[in-house]
Amino acid sequence: MKAWYLQSGDQGDIVLSTRIRLARNLEEFPFPMRLDSAGYSKVSEIVAATLNQGDSFRFVRMEELSPPMAHSLAEKHLISPAFANNPQGRSLLLSKDESVSIMLCEEDHIRLQVLRAGLALSDALKAAFEIEKILREKLTFAYDERIGYLTQCPTNLGTALRASVMLHLPALTRMRQIQRLAQTVAKLGLTIRGAFGEGTTPAGNFYQLSNQITLGITPEAAIENLEAITKQIINQERAGQQKMCGDLKTQDTIYRALGIFQSARLITSQECLQQLSLLRIGAAQGMLNIPMDTLNELLITLLPATLTAANNAELTAEERDVLRAKLARERLG
Amino acid sequence: MKAWYLQSGDQGDIVLSTRIRLARNLEEFPFPMRLDSAGYSKVSEIVAATLNQGDSFRFVRMEELSPPMAHSLAEKHLISPAFANNPQGRSLLLSKDESVSIMLCEEDHIRLQVLRAGLALSDALKAAFEIEKILREKLTFAYDERIGYLTQCPTNLGTALRASVMLHLPALTRMRQIQRLAQTVAKLGLTIRGAFGEGTTPAGNFYQLSNQITLGITPEAAIENLEAITKQIINQERAGQQKMCGDLKTQDTIYRALGIFQSARLITSQECLQQLSLLRIGAAQGMLNIPMDTLNELLITLLPATLTAANNAELTAEERDVLRAKLARERLG
Repeated sequence: MKAWYLQSGDQGDIVLSTRIRLARNLEEFPFPMRLDSAGYSKVSEIVAATLNQGDSFRFVRMEELSPPMAHSLAEKHLISPAFANNPQGRSLLLSKDESVSIMLCEEDHIRLQVLRAGLALSDALKAAFEIEKILREKLTFAYDERIGYLTQCPTNLGTALRASVMLHLPALTRMRQIQRLAQTVAKLGLTIRGAFGEGTTPAGNFYQLSNQITLGITPEAAIENLEAITKQIINQERAGQQKMCGDLKTQDTIYRALGIFQSARLITSQECLQQLSLLRIGAAQGMLNIPMDTLNELLITLLPATLTAANNAELTAEERDVLRAKLARERLG
Repeated sequence: MKAWYLQSGDQGDIVLSTRIRLARNLEEFPFPMRLDSAGYSKVSEIVAATLNQGDSFRFVRMEELSPPMAHSLAEKHLISPAFANNPQGRSLLLSKDESVSIMLCEEDHIRLQVLRAGLALSDALKAAFEIEKILREKLTFAYDERIGYLTQCPTNLGTALRASVMLHLPALTRMRQIQRLAQTVAKLGLTIRGAFGEGTTPAGNFYQLSNQITLGITPEAAIENLEAITKQIINQERAGQQKMCGDLKTQDTIYRALGIFQSARLITSQECLQQLSLLRIGAAQGMLNIPMDTLNELLITLLPATLTAANNAELTAEERDVLRAKLARERLG
């Protein structure tokens, strides 16, 4: 079973992955903010017992994970950085292929996430609701007939659904279209932000596009809206990349990016994202004969914590840069 | 017969080539400054007739060369840039392997040059004097018993010998030792300057070290002095390069230079010299398995005029950069 981040899916030239997150709270317990470590444990045990009839999920006590292991999960967007940084009493349910993760007692009692390669909103939503159904049959969720699901933060009230797609938008970034795009999608109830580091030009031109509205909308309508806008962005970005690649200087930087991965002895995380961005354009536009799933894989496996976690030993920043260069050479050499 | 610039010679890791230049003037003619085009022709014919008994030399009327052909000869240091820029009435005698060139009516009537790969001062001097002997047996040179050979510029009076070696000194450059070195060699009657472009850090860290003193010294003593100092510089540079290569960051830039040559689609002349400098260090220190003669060859063949001359057609600057990248990929790919 190949993890979603080792694959490329539908619209994989632009869309790296899809994520659906459902928030749920147990009616009989206060929100996590009002719970202590013992409360966390109780909630976690109840949820885990409901799901762990088979062995589809691994129950992970966050305190037992090394910091690189925990931060690697955050790099894969399986957990939030806050969850990685505050492991006390908290637990995670993780499916074997890492496509489903359930943070227990993060901001809400249950934060159920489903991840998929490429653009797969309906599929991911369906999978999320299948798991939610198992839980719903045994547990009573905090729910208001008028509002919908109750969540600790009011921004999630209602559907308690956050759907997002990770996009690679180098052409729109180059053409300085991201700010305009952010204003447009805000009017349509969406938000876009850098996937790796915030700022105006996020590293590697990777962005998260997600829905913001959870009240007065059905989950299906929310993802339809997100999907329609995503497809428009994909078309703009593809046209932009095609235009970019007509330029000899851009072609040169793309081929050089490959040369650098095949030869460098030190690659920082920041440079890695930049050069991977160039390789993605080259692969998407048929200039480079590199499968997109290889590039998806490298994007995750060369991130600092994931690199360290896979190495089973502490690494200095320089040792990480050496190892990153070595793995890239082996994979792209 | 492989041209000297396609080979690597003695001390070839640091010394690219050796050049001996003898200036001579015919007693019966005024210096070229006082000659017109008809005078140039007369002198040229006399000298050419003296040497061209066999077919060892090609007689080249500079006016018949295309500008790239003429400038290519200057890039190879077979003629001076001034000679390439002022072809009117001037001629050149060029040996088939391009190791001997005789500029006729440049600053002096005869500027005889012998070039060799690597450090080969005695050998080049011997070869120069052998040709000079053929000329001397038939022609009468302007000569003063007290001073020696008479030349148009007083800086050449006496031996009229300029001996020079082309050195690659990236470590001394990096350690900011060149200025100190220039002061030291000046006290010893030598001068050092950038081989490709002047300035404090010449492109690619290539330098010309040559003798300055031509009065009160024998040719043999002059080249012994030059050779002894060259060998000291070689030792310093080698130790410096070895130290540099202990540094991971330097290793990274050296391997990347190879990656760039193997992948880039556009390489400017300036970048080419910089990256070739890094490859030379890598080859000299055993990091890269590239023969030094390949690097000597690329250093010359990728220079703008030589590149254009070999292409047999006019090239824009961008077309040159494309062709340079293509040839580098073919040679180092």
